[in-house]
Amino acid sequence: MTVKSPSPCPVPDGLAADIAAASRILAHQGVVDAMGHVSLRHPDAPDRFLMPRAMAPGLTTPDDILQMDLDCTTCGDDSRKGFLERFIHGEIYRARPDVISIVHSHSTSVIPFGLARKPMQAMFHNAAFLARGVPVHDIRQRFGTTDLLICDCHRGQDLAKALGQDDVVLMRAHGMVATGPTLQLAVFRAVMTEVNARIQHWTLTLADGGEIDALSAEEGVLADAPNSGASARAWDLWRLRVRQETGW
Amino acid sequence: MTVKSPSPCPVPDGLAADIAAASRILAHQGVVDAMGHVSLRHPDAPDRFLMPRAMAPGLTTPDDILQMDLDCTTCGDDSRKGFLERFIHGEIYRARPDVISIVHSHSTSVIPFGLARKPMQAMFHNAAFLARGVPVHDIRQRFGTTDLLICDCHRGQDLAKALGQDDVVLMRAHGMVATGPTLQLAVFRAVMTEVNARIQHWTLTLADGGEIDALSAEEGVLADAPNSGASARAWDLWRLRVRQETGW
Amino acid sequence: MTVKSPSPCPVPDGLAADIAAASRILAHQGVVDAMGHVSLRHPDAPDRFLMPRAMAPGLTTPDDILQMDLDCTTCGDDSRKGFLERFIHGEIYRARPDVISIVHSHSTSVIPFGLARKPMQAMFHNAAFLARGVPVHDIRQRFGTTDLLICDCHRGQDLAKALGQDDVVLMRAHGMVATGPTLQLAVFRAVMTEVNARIQHWTLTLADGGEIDALSAEEGVLADAPNSGASARAWDLWRLRVRQETGW
Amino acid sequence: MTVKSPSPCPVPDGLAADIAAASRILAHQGVVDAMGHVSLRHPDAPDRFLMPRAMAPGLTTPDDILQMDLDCTTCGDDSRKGFLERFIHGEIYRARPDVISIVHSHSTSVIPFGLARKPMQAMFHNAAFLARGVPVHDIRQRFGTTDLLICDCHRGQDLAKALGQDDVVLMRAHGMVATGPTLQLAVFRAVMTEVNARIQHWTLTLADGGEIDALSAEEGVLADAPNSGASARAWDLWRLRVRQETGW
Repeated sequence: MTVKSPSPCPVPDGLAADIAAASRILAHQGVVDAMGHVSLRHPDAPDRFLMPRAMAPGLTTPDDILQMDLDCTTCGDDSRKGFLERFIHGEIYRARPDVISIVHSHSTSVIPFGLARKPMQAMFHNAAFLARGVPVHDIRQRFGTTDLLICDCHRGQDLAKALGQDDVVLMRAHGMVATGPTLQLAVFRAVMTEVNARIQHWTLTLADGGEIDALSAEEGVLADAPNSGASARAWDLWRLRVRQETGW
Repeated sequence: MTVKSPSPCPVPDGLAADIAAASRILAHQGVVDAMGHVSLRHPDAPDRFLMPRAMAPGLTTPDDILQMDLDCTTCGDDSRKGFLERFIHGEIYRARPDVISIVHSHSTSVIPFGLARKPMQAMFHNAAFLARGVPVHDIRQRFGTTDLLICDCHRGQDLAKALGQDDVVLMRAHGMVATGPTLQLAVFRAVMTEVNARIQHWTLTLADGGEIDALSAEEGVLADAPNSGASARAWDLWRLRVRQETGW
Repeated sequence: MTVKSPSPCPVPDGLAADIAAASRILAHQGVVDAMGHVSLRHPDAPDRFLMPRAMAPGLTTPDDILQMDLDCTTCGDDSRKGFLERFIHGEIYRARPDVISIVHSHSTSVIPFGLARKPMQAMFHNAAFLARGVPVHDIRQRFGTTDLLICDCHRGQDLAKALGQDDVVLMRAHGMVATGPTLQLAVFRAVMTEVNARIQHWTLTLADGGEIDALSAEEGVLADAPNSGASARAWDLWRLRVRQETGW
Repeated sequence: MTVKSPSPCPVPDGLAADIAAASRILAHQGVVDAMGHVSLRHPDAPDRFLMPRAMAPGLTTPDDILQMDLDCTTCGDDSRKGFLERFIHGEIYRARPDVISIVHSHSTSVIPFGLARKPMQAMFHNAAFLARGVPVHDIRQRFGTTDLLICDCHRGQDLAKALGQDDVVLMRAHGMVATGPTLQLAVFRAVMTEVNARIQHWTLTLADGGEIDALSAEEGVLADAPNSGASARAWDLWRLRVRQETGW
C-alpha cells in the first residue's frame, strides 16, 4: 500500500525566490554554512510549508523550493529529497499557528549557551525578542542517547514543546531555531540571536561575575515592537545583495 | 492647523555625496549594519543638519540626504521619512555648538561596556579621545521602562546631557554615539571606539584583575591632537573604496 | 649508489583537480594560510599517495600534484620539491590502512588545545568525530628539543602512534592533523575541528569552571554517522566556489 | 642656512614595487589599516632606506616610495611628506646593522600585551622568533607624558634601545615593530606576531592560570630556522594577490 502524496497548492509569484534569497542571506550573514534551512508557511494553505530541498543554503535557487504538508511529506509528483530535519519545521508549524517562518542553524556563537547552562538574555533592543526567555532543548531528556538530529515527528514534537510560546529555542550540542510571524522577521531574529550571543559572551567576561544591565522582560516587550520595521529595512539591504549576486 | 516646514538652505556641492559615503564607510568597517546613521551640521546654517532618510546605511546615495532643523523637522517639500532616532542628532547639535558631525551605531564590541559597569578606557593613541571619559546613558534613570529608542526631543535632550562635554556616549542595551568637529573625525572616532573596545576586552582578560597601562588623561589630550591628520588619511582610503563601488 | 624512483601509477581523471580544490577550500575556510597540506591515498595503489608540491595551498592547481610512495619518495621522473612534512602523510597511511585522506594545518583556534592541557571535546553533532578523543602529540617526549617539524619518517611514526585509532591528533606548538575515509570527510573534519575549537573556547569561558553538556562518547558514535552526508553537501558548495574561481 | 638634502642612490628595478606590495599585503592581512608602514634598507647604500610617503598602506604604489638617510631626511629633490614616525625606522637601522626591513603596525591583538604586563611567548613554530623574548617599550619611562608617537630621533633611539637584539618590540598603548633580515621575513613576522597574539589570548584563557607548553628558548632557535623558507612561500601567495589587484 502506497501513501498518496498530498497535492500542491499554487504558490504566489516571487515567494520561492524570497525563500531561496533568505537561504542565501543566512549564509552571507554567517548564520548557516553548508548546513541549516529556512522555511515559510504557505500563505494560502496553513497546513503546508515551503522549504528548499536538501542542499547547501548558499546555493539555493527558486527552483529548489519544495512544498510539504505538516507531516513533512512532499506534495505532488516531486521526488527531490527534503532535509532530514524538516520535522523541526512541520511540528513547530503544527504546534504554533502564529508562526509563519522558521530558521534552523548551527550558529557558532549561540551553541555555547546550549552547553554551559547559562541562559541567554537580551543584550540590546534589536534582540529584544530574547527577553521573553530562551529555552534549551536537551534531546537526552526524552530520547536518551541519539544522533542529536530532529529526524522524525516525535523528536519534532518534543522540540516544539521546548519552544513553547517563545520565539527562539536552543538545541543542546546542535544549534538553534528562530521563528517569526514573517519570513523577514524569522531571518532577522536568527541573525540577531547570533549577534546577541557574541555580545553576551563579552559582556559576561567583562562583568566577571558582577551584575549586567540586560533588558528586563518589560523592556523586551516594548523594545521588540519596532523590530518588525527594523527587519524590513535589513531585508531590503540583504535581499538586494542576493539580487546583485544572482539576478533574481 | 499645520506646522509650516522650515525652508531648506542650499547645500554645497559634494557634501551630500560625502555624507552618503560616510554611511557606506561605516557599513564597510562593521560599525553599522542595516541600522545606524551619520549626520553633518549644515556648514552655512548651524541650526540645520543633513542626514540620510530612513534606510540601510550601506545603500545610501547622495539623493537620500534630508535637511532638518534642530527640532528634527524635515525642511522644504520633502515627504521622505527620516530615522525614528533623528533626535539623537538634533538635540546634540543644539546642546553642543562645537559638534559638527554625529554617528549613531550598534557597534557590537562596544555594547558590553554599556551593560557591565566597566568603564571604557583609551587603549591606544588612535582612540585617545576616549581618555577624557566615556559616559553611559541609561534611559531607565529618567524614563523608566521604555522601548530604549531616542525617538523624541525629551529623550534626545537626556542623551545630550549624558554626553556632556565628551566625544562619545554609550547607550545602555542599545549602542553608542560618536561626535566630532568634522565628518571625517566623527567617522574615525566611531570606528576607533569599536576597535578600542575589542582591544580593551582582551586587555582586561589578559590582565585578569591586575593593573593595565591605559592612556592617562594627560596622554589622551596630547595623543588625540594628531588624530585629525590620521582621520584624514583614513578618510582618503575609505572614501576611495566607496568611489570604486559606486562611481561617486 | 642512487635510489631508483618508484614508478607512478596512472591517476583517475579529475582526482588531481579535486586534491588541488581541497587545498584551496582549506584556504577559503581559514584552516590553512600560506602553509598546510592535504593528501589522498591513491585509489588503485594503496602504497602511494597524491599530494601537492611544496607551495601555498591557495595557489595549488591540478598540475601541482605529486605522487609519492609511503617512504615519501616522489614517483617517476619528477624533480619538483615535496613538502618538508610529507612524512605526516606517509607514516599515517602506513599505520592506518583505513585512512584515505589527510589534512595538516596550523588552525589558529585549535593550537591552544595543544598548549593548555585542556582536552578538546565534541561541542556539536558536526564535530561528533571528536568525541572519540583528541590526543596531543608532544614531540619533546621522544625527540627532546627540536624544530617541531615532522620532517622524517621517525617523527612521522611517532605522530602516527599518537594518533592511534582516532581521527584527529593535535601537535603541540604546531597545529593538527585530521584524517578521513574520503577526501571530502578529511576536509570536513579539518574545518569542523576549527569550528569546534572556537565553540569550546567560548563554552568553557561561559561555564567558568562549571559543567558543560558536551557530546558523550555514545552520542559521538551515533551523531558522526550522518556527517558523511553532511560532508558531501559541504563539498558541493565549497568545490563549486573553487570552480567559479579557477574554471576547473 | 638650509640643510642640503642627501643625494639619492639608484634603486634596483622592482624594489619599489615590492615595498609598495608589502604595504598592501600588510593591509590585506589585517596588520595595518589606514595607518602603519614598512621600509627596506637600501641594498647598495646601508645608510639609506626606502619607505612609502605618508599615506594609507593599502593605497601605496611604486611611485610613492621615498628614499631617506638614517636621520630620516628625504633624499634628492623630493618634497613629498614622509611619515611622522619614520624615526622608528631610521634609528633601528642605525642601531642594528643586521636589520634590513622594518614593519610598524597597530596590530589589534598585539596591543593588549603592551598594556597588561603579560609577556608575549611563542605559541607555535611559525612565531618561533618570539621565543627570544618580546620587550615592551614604555615611552613614559624616559619621556614622561607624551603624544605616544616616535616622531623624532631621540624617541627613535629609545625605542631601538628597547628592541635591543630582539626581532620584535611592543609599544605600550600604541602598537609594535617587527624587524627582519629580508623584506619577506619582516612582513611574515609582523603577520605571525598578530596570529600568535590571538593564539596566546585563547591559550591563556584556556589554561586559566595553569601551565602552558609554549616554545622554549632552545626550541625557538631551531624552529625559527625554517621560517625563512616559510616566509618565501607566504610571500609568493601574498605578492601574487597584490599583482592580481594592481597589475604590478
